[in-house]
Amino acid sequence: MNSLNNLNIQPIENGELRKLLQHNIDQKTKPVGSLGFLEELALQIGLIQETTKPELKSPVMLTVASDHGITEEGVSPVPTRITWQQVSNFINGGGGIGLFCKQYGFDLYVVDAGVDHDFEAHPRLIDKKVRKATRNFLKEPAMTIDECDEAIRNGRDIMALFAEKGSNVVGFGEMGIGNSSPATALLSVFTGLPVEECTGPGCGLDQKGVQHKASVLRQAFEKHGVSDKPEQNLATYGGLEIATMAGAMLEAAQRRMLIVVDGFITTSAFLAAYEICPAVRDYAVFSHCSKEYGHVKMLDHMNGRAVLNLDLRLGEGTGSALAYPIIQGSVAMLNDMTSFGEAKVYNVVDETGNIVSK
Amino acid sequence: MNSLNNLNIQPIENGELRKLLQHNIDQKTKPVGSLGFLEELALQIGLIQETTKPELKSPVMLTVASDHGITEEGVSPVPTRITWQQVSNFINGGGGIGLFCKQYGFDLYVVDAGVDHDFEAHPRLIDKKVRKATRNFLKEPAMTIDECDEAIRNGRDIMALFAEKGSNVVGFGEMGIGNSSPATALLSVFTGLPVEECTGPGCGLDQKGVQHKASVLRQAFEKHGVSDKPEQNLATYGGLEIATMAGAMLEAAQRRMLIVVDGFITTSAFLAAYEICPAVRDYAVFSHCSKEYGHVKMLDHMNGRAVLNLDLRLGEGTGSALAYPIIQGSVAMLNDMTSFGEAKVYNVVDETGNIVSK
Repeated sequence: MNSLNNLNIQPIENGELRKLLQHNIDQKTKPVGSLGFLEELALQIGLIQETTKPELKSPVMLTVASDHGITEEGVSPVPTRITWQQVSNFINGGGGIGLFCKQYGFDLYVVDAGVDHDFEAHPRLIDKKVRKATRNFLKEPAMTIDECDEAIRNGRDIMALFAEKGSNVVGFGEMGIGNSSPATALLSVFTGLPVEECTGPGCGLDQKGVQHKASVLRQAFEKHGVSDKPEQNLATYGGLEIATMAGAMLEAAQRRMLIVVDGFITTSAFLAAYEICPAVRDYAVFSHCSKEYGHVKMLDHMNGRAVLNLDLRLGEGTGSALAYPIIQGSVAMLNDMTSFGEAKVYNVVDETGNIVSK
Repeated sequence: MNSLNNLNIQPIENGELRKLLQHNIDQKTKPVGSLGFLEELALQIGLIQETTKPELKSPVMLTVASDHGITEEGVSPVPTRITWQQVSNFINGGGGIGLFCKQYGFDLYVVDAGVDHDFEAHPRLIDKKVRKATRNFLKEPAMTIDECDEAIRNGRDIMALFAEKGSNVVGFGEMGIGNSSPATALLSVFTGLPVEECTGPGCGLDQKGVQHKASVLRQAFEKHGVSDKPEQNLATYGGLEIATMAGAMLEAAQRRMLIVVDGFITTSAFLAAYEICPAVRDYAVFSHCSKEYGHVKMLDHMNGRAVLNLDLRLGEGTGSALAYPIIQGSVAMLNDMTSFGEAKVYNVVDETGNIVSK
């Protein structure tokens, strides 16, 4: 795939800087480890930015939208025109993601990766439409390799642009009626779990609907099989928003940006990126664990811990936005929390991690 | 107890307003229930404020500090002077709570409920010292009934003042070397769980230290027994910061303020308030589930769900501060998120909660 040329993601460092960051965190006026996961986040962000004083700059939210041919099989209870209607809603500041981007300080852009609608130009809408919806992957691959390649390239190009404009944090989210089907298929393909163990209600199927969705996916697997090339599986079972996000995530990691991953669909894109290049993992924060069945299996597969557990299942990037203040808090702790020396709290930390008197 | 005179906390309404709030939440452009716990928070805050358009005003953080006679028994690995040193640190904007109050917009006040130190006056320090430290409750009750009464009254007075100044949200936190012992004792007393099942490492005991702490608490129970009056148990086994917080929480509920509860120690104060008057429960948000063993048992006892699960165990109110942006997000959702009608997303929600076309 041309879009994967020049891909060269560096794993984050595991040596002196890590020790220095850990030392600085341990010298804050608190029992060692008592800020829990915040301390891990601070360490990770320092390593990503290769500094003891990281800064989060110009956070951008990319909500990537597309339609899905598989909806012909009745895998979603919601009509597909909701995809474009919600895109219009979001670019005008509406919906969950419009609201939470304002609330938490993200610059929101919606990417049209393959919505079945002709939009008028809008400063918040990035036109990267590869085609109007994927094909029905029960009948034929969702994308050709070339289409998938184009979507990945589009993601990389968009991300490069925001990196060059100075963003070093990107939140991801999506909008696409029917996209829990490709996300479920990718979960099954990439983890080897039986598709029945991966399938949930998406945005509102009942139990019979869930069984039907699993059966559609099972038939698709029987038809197309599983490739040993992750990009081939992404083309066969994925979505245009998923491939575009995967490309953007890979580029973000290459440029040492912090990637904030949303729920089930967005994580399926990250999973594809991870299968293509495992080093991308070092750059990700998983914002929340979705209520959608299967999300926790994705996180487990990548040994990922979610920042939030709020039973969210909205997508759009809402979890990414909601977790951001916690991420900011971790960086503030590293940069601005008083240390024992500064605070004249006369204690030091011994090698077992306890506070002891000087 | 005089301090409990005129206590009259109203349970939050469970009728028409609840239905109206739920309707408004369900009309937002999202699948019904897809913002999970945020929807429950929004509903609760609307009911507390008795409006469909709640507002969070002038959030104040009360970090209540005290020392503990029980530290004579070697129940903490940390010297008691850390209590006053950290109080000095906090009022000057340092420590975790100084940092996070700035980060998340809380007005921080530290209350001296019983610190074993003479402080100079400071605009961020509220002097409500009942005595310098509690007594060693292995030997005699930690407080006399009159001292406990005074601490509860102090908490109520402080809270009344902030309510009158216009705050309708209060976060709670604490500082007090040794205070995981009274908190553990109160957990055991109020839930009936054996003390050994309630005892954890606090800010850094090893396994032997935990066993010793449990044994000290067991001996204290054998000496003083358990009363059927919660305020008597609070006096016998509690702390001055715990009783002061309990009083402030009761007053906050009476004045229909939102109470944001921190970790293990702060929740023990809330548990005492709950045993005194169960209606206080309706006004509480539990900000996080602490890594301290026993906290989850407190939450379970009150059927409480934590906003965050980040393995925090710092106290001070840091969890209360960190959860606040999520609470703000829930209110923003209720007030400012587009509804289906406003967004021209032409769908309505049927009675089973699914989105259906108009």
